[in-house]
Amino acid sequence: MENKDMEIVHKELFELLENRRIKQLQQILEGMNEFDVAAFLTELKPQQMAMVFRMLSKEKGAEVFANLEVEEQEQIINSITDAELAGIIEELYLDDAVDMMEELPANVVKRVMRIATSETRELINQFLRYPEYSVGSIMTAEYVDLKKYMNVLESIARIRRIGKDRETIYTCYVTSADRRLEGVVTLRELLLADDDEVIENIMDTKVIYTTTTEDKESVINLFSDYDLLAVPVVDKEGRLVGIVTVDDVIDVMQQEATEDFEKMAAITPSDRPYMKLGVLELWRNRIPWLLLLMISATFTGMIISNFEDALAAQAALMAFIPMLMDTGGNSGSQSSVTVVRGLSLGDIKFADIGSVMWKEMRVGLLSGISLAAINFIKMLLVDRVLLGNSDISVMIAAVVCLTLVSTVLIAKLVGCSLPMLAEKLGFDPAVMASPFITTIVDALSLCVYFSVARVILKV
Amino acid sequence: MENKDMEIVHKELFELLENRRIKQLQQILEGMNEFDVAAFLTELKPQQMAMVFRMLSKEKGAEVFANLEVEEQEQIINSITDAELAGIIEELYLDDAVDMMEELPANVVKRVMRIATSETRELINQFLRYPEYSVGSIMTAEYVDLKKYMNVLESIARIRRIGKDRETIYTCYVTSADRRLEGVVTLRELLLADDDEVIENIMDTKVIYTTTTEDKESVINLFSDYDLLAVPVVDKEGRLVGIVTVDDVIDVMQQEATEDFEKMAAITPSDRPYMKLGVLELWRNRIPWLLLLMISATFTGMIISNFEDALAAQAALMAFIPMLMDTGGNSGSQSSVTVVRGLSLGDIKFADIGSVMWKEMRVGLLSGISLAAINFIKMLLVDRVLLGNSDISVMIAAVVCLTLVSTVLIAKLVGCSLPMLAEKLGFDPAVMASPFITTIVDALSLCVYFSVARVILKV
Repeated sequence: MENKDMEIVHKELFELLENRRIKQLQQILEGMNEFDVAAFLTELKPQQMAMVFRMLSKEKGAEVFANLEVEEQEQIINSITDAELAGIIEELYLDDAVDMMEELPANVVKRVMRIATSETRELINQFLRYPEYSVGSIMTAEYVDLKKYMNVLESIARIRRIGKDRETIYTCYVTSADRRLEGVVTLRELLLADDDEVIENIMDTKVIYTTTTEDKESVINLFSDYDLLAVPVVDKEGRLVGIVTVDDVIDVMQQEATEDFEKMAAITPSDRPYMKLGVLELWRNRIPWLLLLMISATFTGMIISNFEDALAAQAALMAFIPMLMDTGGNSGSQSSVTVVRGLSLGDIKFADIGSVMWKEMRVGLLSGISLAAINFIKMLLVDRVLLGNSDISVMIAAVVCLTLVSTVLIAKLVGCSLPMLAEKLGFDPAVMASPFITTIVDALSLCVYFSVARVILKV
Repeated sequence: MENKDMEIVHKELFELLENRRIKQLQQILEGMNEFDVAAFLTELKPQQMAMVFRMLSKEKGAEVFANLEVEEQEQIINSITDAELAGIIEELYLDDAVDMMEELPANVVKRVMRIATSETRELINQFLRYPEYSVGSIMTAEYVDLKKYMNVLESIARIRRIGKDRETIYTCYVTSADRRLEGVVTLRELLLADDDEVIENIMDTKVIYTTTTEDKESVINLFSDYDLLAVPVVDKEGRLVGIVTVDDVIDVMQQEATEDFEKMAAITPSDRPYMKLGVLELWRNRIPWLLLLMISATFTGMIISNFEDALAAQAALMAFIPMLMDTGGNSGSQSSVTVVRGLSLGDIKFADIGSVMWKEMRVGLLSGISLAAINFIKMLLVDRVLLGNSDISVMIAAVVCLTLVSTVLIAKLVGCSLPMLAEKLGFDPAVMASPFITTIVDALSLCVYFSVARVILKV
């Protein structure tokens, strides 16, 4: 299915809707994927959307509903009857229902909770108690549980009986009478075993699990390291309370990567897509950081003011300030982004700080010397000889190039160590990335520049 | 399983190895997860590693092998017999074997190819022909195929018979006699249907598929949009040639995100983890971009040189250069990173360029005016009155603040439009992110600064 195909399909659907050929429209929608139906609904006007949504069967409706953004969910909730709403809520997987409740306005939540059955209401309430960053907030209670004394035939029969309402049937969890997690068995293992084999003999007792209070980011590496389709979640007492499935983890991965990109670009993360954000929201997410960084940058300006005399005596020095600042900033970004990403993938740990700094020091020296050598030649050959700029003396070139080596070295060391220290102290390393390091390195490199100039040029 | 637990396990295993308690070591390793065994092997000396690897059963050995980095795979290949190597190759899933062949040195590849069975050799050769960026390079040929005239009972029997060697049995593909893809059915649907139901009646004919030559990054959004566990891959003639499973897509997601982070920080991406990269490699990945950006920054320097007279006349102007450059750079990064990420997630398309620029223009104006207002007050109140810096006149504050508004506005517009144009022209938008935009915005903002200064201060 290409994007172009979808555009043609949407056009056809529009025409059916315009011409009121409801039966045919209904038939096509029922056969389409829920994500594609949701995408189609999003393109309609509010009343049209509610009308088309009500054409869907209860099952399809719930699936499509889970794929809509919160604005559209709210519109639909406000335009359907209590009975219809109750049907949707019962059909939704618990994690989708909880997601929705976290975003909806309070009066809509009240209506939903009033309509839900007492069982669903209780479960939603329980799941709403997990903080947004936690594993608890993305887990679902709909898993298949087996007992270790069952045989394969009985287990498969149980899966066929209860499987319809479970988010996955491919990984089954073996629990004791008091709901403690004893083992895990995949449907694949069940199907490939003999019918009368007992679960206890085929289950894996070394279960990879997580707990409700863990950071949800931490399950990403469990899935990528162990190639799982689902991971069980236990509470403080070791009792199985839910599972996290791979489709939800893929969403978390994309969210967390987006958040890291935003933090590294000095933006307060938002969990809604760019095209849905208003101008004021975008401004609110960006302005505090711009302001903070602007104020920090004025300190760099103060350093320049302090050396006004030196600059007045050797005006040529001024022209190299942007190059030194930018190169320092870029060198620092390279190290900090590498380290922040390594920390998040688990490739780098705080214990590695020594070897990381030693490596970055050597990379920094090598890079600094290469850049300085090229710059030295460029200043004397291009600037002085070719462009005839007689202000550029060998001494000035020496000052600029010595500063370049120190700046790159300092930038690499600050860039790699600050995010690691931030992580150790419990701060988010991503926030410590590029812009802040650029500001720090800017100030340090100017201090070096003017100190070197003082010593060599005696200004 | 926490990290701390793993350290204790490793220590125990070391002790067993040191004390030559081979039987016990063997038993524990056989019961461990393949990823954890691979992590343990990586910590051993080369000879020890080969010795411990040879203790594993053929099946376990192959699984562990697939989880090792290419350096360790090479060491092991070089220390085992032809018969052992042949066993491992036949046990490996095709995509893991192909991954390995792409990385190993030519002489080792030759040995592996000589030992493999002719069937495996042919398949590996075929798969090696797909370029590294393509879906073909990550697919596997080991899927379950069914025919539409089979019933559920027959299908389940077939899955139980051939399932052992297939990478997944949870999604099955219905093919015609000439291997054309006719439908897809999940094991869940099979199990929940009646035994005598015919596949044709339960299969989904609206299959979401991809082709061998697509960019592998494109399957990420298929998985995240449609919550799939596997996606079928067809060739130019529409014949089913393989599948891509969700575990491989998770790896692609992490790789692609890491590559985007690296490109945005002006680093040539590398597919190996940081701790495995040598100083020279790190230098090689970073220096070309630093050099390019350093040379571009000298143009910014030339702008300053051109306005030396103006700066000499109004020395106070100099102190605000870092603040203007940094704020411009940060504003541009915010927009470019947001747009690059939006493009990669499919939230933003080229067709949106008009509305994105209109939005960024308003955010830019709002941000620029807020920053300028605060800066104006700060310059006159703090710098002039509190710090008694009499160089700061209302006129100078006006020049700085007008430049600030223009700089932020320009930065936002350049930051959002360049990545979109790059994507449209077939370049990678991530490369067009922060550092390049910073360099462009630096130059533009200084031009504005000095032009405004000329007009207002008549310098």
